[in-house]
Amino acid sequence: VANQRLVEFKEAFLELHSYEQAQIYYDLAPETRHVVIGILTDDELAEVFDALEEEPAAISELLEEMSPRHATHILNKMFTDNVADILGEMDADEVATYLSLMPKDDANELRQLIEYDDETAGALLATEYLAIDPNYTVGEAMQYVKKEANEAETIFYLYVVDEAEQLVGVVSLRDLLTHPDALPITEITNTRVIAAHPADDQEDVAMTMRDYDFMALPVTDHANHMIGIITIDDIVDVIDEEAASDYSGLAGVDVEIVDISPLAAAKKRLPWLIALLFLGMSTASLISHYEALVSQAAILAVFISLITGTAGNAGTQSLAVAVRKIALNEENPLWKVILTEITIGLLIGVITGVTIFLIVGFWKANWFLGLAIGISMMAAITVANLAGSLIPMGMNKIGVDPAVASGPFISTLSDLTSVLIYFSIAQIFLSNFVNQH
Amino acid sequence: VANQRLVEFKEAFLELHSYEQAQIYYDLAPETRHVVIGILTDDELAEVFDALEEEPAAISELLEEMSPRHATHILNKMFTDNVADILGEMDADEVATYLSLMPKDDANELRQLIEYDDETAGALLATEYLAIDPNYTVGEAMQYVKKEANEAETIFYLYVVDEAEQLVGVVSLRDLLTHPDALPITEITNTRVIAAHPADDQEDVAMTMRDYDFMALPVTDHANHMIGIITIDDIVDVIDEEAASDYSGLAGVDVEIVDISPLAAAKKRLPWLIALLFLGMSTASLISHYEALVSQAAILAVFISLITGTAGNAGTQSLAVAVRKIALNEENPLWKVILTEITIGLLIGVITGVTIFLIVGFWKANWFLGLAIGISMMAAITVANLAGSLIPMGMNKIGVDPAVASGPFISTLSDLTSVLIYFSIAQIFLSNFVNQH
Repeated sequence: VANQRLVEFKEAFLELHSYEQAQIYYDLAPETRHVVIGILTDDELAEVFDALEEEPAAISELLEEMSPRHATHILNKMFTDNVADILGEMDADEVATYLSLMPKDDANELRQLIEYDDETAGALLATEYLAIDPNYTVGEAMQYVKKEANEAETIFYLYVVDEAEQLVGVVSLRDLLTHPDALPITEITNTRVIAAHPADDQEDVAMTMRDYDFMALPVTDHANHMIGIITIDDIVDVIDEEAASDYSGLAGVDVEIVDISPLAAAKKRLPWLIALLFLGMSTASLISHYEALVSQAAILAVFISLITGTAGNAGTQSLAVAVRKIALNEENPLWKVILTEITIGLLIGVITGVTIFLIVGFWKANWFLGLAIGISMMAAITVANLAGSLIPMGMNKIGVDPAVASGPFISTLSDLTSVLIYFSIAQIFLSNFVNQH
Repeated sequence: VANQRLVEFKEAFLELHSYEQAQIYYDLAPETRHVVIGILTDDELAEVFDALEEEPAAISELLEEMSPRHATHILNKMFTDNVADILGEMDADEVATYLSLMPKDDANELRQLIEYDDETAGALLATEYLAIDPNYTVGEAMQYVKKEANEAETIFYLYVVDEAEQLVGVVSLRDLLTHPDALPITEITNTRVIAAHPADDQEDVAMTMRDYDFMALPVTDHANHMIGIITIDDIVDVIDEEAASDYSGLAGVDVEIVDISPLAAAKKRLPWLIALLFLGMSTASLISHYEALVSQAAILAVFISLITGTAGNAGTQSLAVAVRKIALNEENPLWKVILTEITIGLLIGVITGVTIFLIVGFWKANWFLGLAIGISMMAAITVANLAGSLIPMGMNKIGVDPAVASGPFISTLSDLTSVLIYFSIAQIFLSNFVNQH
């Protein structure tokens, strides 16, 4: 990039939206990036990095291309929620270096932010919010907004904080704009504030903001001291992330990282498959016990995959509904879930069982075989249905993310119970349908 | 609700957030609702109904509790995107009644909005945006914002529209607040506007707004005339909805409606299960062809569910990754997908195949059987993997939502191919392992 063209480049670059700037910056060769670093101000670079917020690990690598002092200046100009995410990706000594170069207050604030657990409200909060005194007038508040607008992460809400640092109310910019300057701010303050606490689950925060159509939510500690805000753009990312994680859970594979080499992809998928292979081995060894039975009636082998497959499908459906219910916090008492799922299982099982009884009866002209398979199907579906609901519920109770009870796990487990049910029932009916056969 | 208490109720009700008001209003008995309708103004009722936006069908029923004229007044005060959704749920003659009672311009605008297809940008757009003249100064624009703030769906962006109704730029309220009143608006107008078109897929719009962290996106026609805006709160709902639909697809059951009776639940789940049962029947009839083989070597039955199960699990993983890639528009050329998936399939297949070869070899002390099962496993996994990727890609190509290629469908289909592979290979090895057995 020659000197004249550098000026042109800078001009064109700054015309772009920060998201586009970030994509370009990230795709440059390190040497070119070095040149770009030289022509952009710290504020401009901070904006580029803020737009890369979804990739904190990438930012931490980009920062290593600069001197620690320069990098610290940029971090100081970024939003604190993003800075905390980036520091969270670094080694302890790197973090110490950056923090030591910062003003003491900023460093302390960040030290506290890094402490919050992942996937909580604390991990999402930024401290760049607009706080006003309860004694302000509308006009004074407006002056304050104008002064601070460029520093704040959002200007749509002003948080009314008293001298004890406690959050006492919220004023919307819309109300500020539509009321006369002389009016005391208390007249348009909403004192019924809905706030999150730092330890709140990010999914619950997302649900609240979605339901209330909030653009930002304040975060307070248990003494109602204002700590920071969570903005809607981060919540959009949370909803996306949680959806991908539920989806990954159901499929038994992490779908978040899609653009990887076949080797890396195989490495990610294999652990689950091999674990399930061993679970599948118990099904195999169970069937192995019935080998003599199969020798007598090879026809039994014909329906193994039909019964395990159908029960597995029913179990997967039931699992998905249960995981969704848990995500929506629509949990019912245990006895009610069991009763409901047994009812659904029996309804589905009876209809599917009768269908297969008729098919097998006509196809093989063997009504006892049809009966054995019909009853097995009904029982296997009911059990799979129950397992599909109870396992994620149980996991949720003991604090494990129910999404890890994947579809493949439920269907492999249901193979085991289905085969057990099938051969037990087949054995009872054996004399009938083998004679007839 | 007595007269004195009515006043108290109204006061308490109006203190609540509109989302809470909506929940309460919706849960009231129809007679109580009738009383509440009497004490709230049209503006207040419109706000309650706007907060119920996610349930347009429910609103349309609530409107029937009022006179058509009263209902029309409230519709006129609601945001147009919500009104269009509600009218979309009504019969043609109901729609005609309401529209005939509206001012002509409003009715025409709504007629156009109802025409847009579901799940497009057009179906999400509202017409309550702030439009300013390119000749305005910052101060004039600010006056305009103050005047219109209460009517606009968002005040964060002002759209600069010229006399030909064309969108020529955007100004953010933040920039407006931080610049002097005398400055011409053109000085702070961003002319590189990112806009959606009415026919754009809602998922693409959501992706753009998520990436750019926009609070609203303008919608223009192909001649760049401004039609309306899409706001972030609607996009949050879209992301949620699309995620639930992908999840439902993978599970083969609609998880959107969770709180229904067991009978209704069974009804929703059965069609898929029965359809898949018939697909499963083809697997059964395929095994039936090999009944003689099973009679000779009952041990073959032992591994049916292990092979179909493992291949099904691999196919589900591959399906989930493919659907995610399609959702993210990360599509590669067909030959590359096939090559990648065959490579992943072979990698996973070889490792899983060798594992099962060793297990079966040691367990049954039968290395030829182990070999037959290992090779079958490898081939079955590779095929399932390929099917899991190609089927959703093919569906997407022909315009079918790839999410309907559900996990249960792929695993039931893969049962068929797996069984075919297994018995074909077993037949080749038969003389070896049966002798040894």
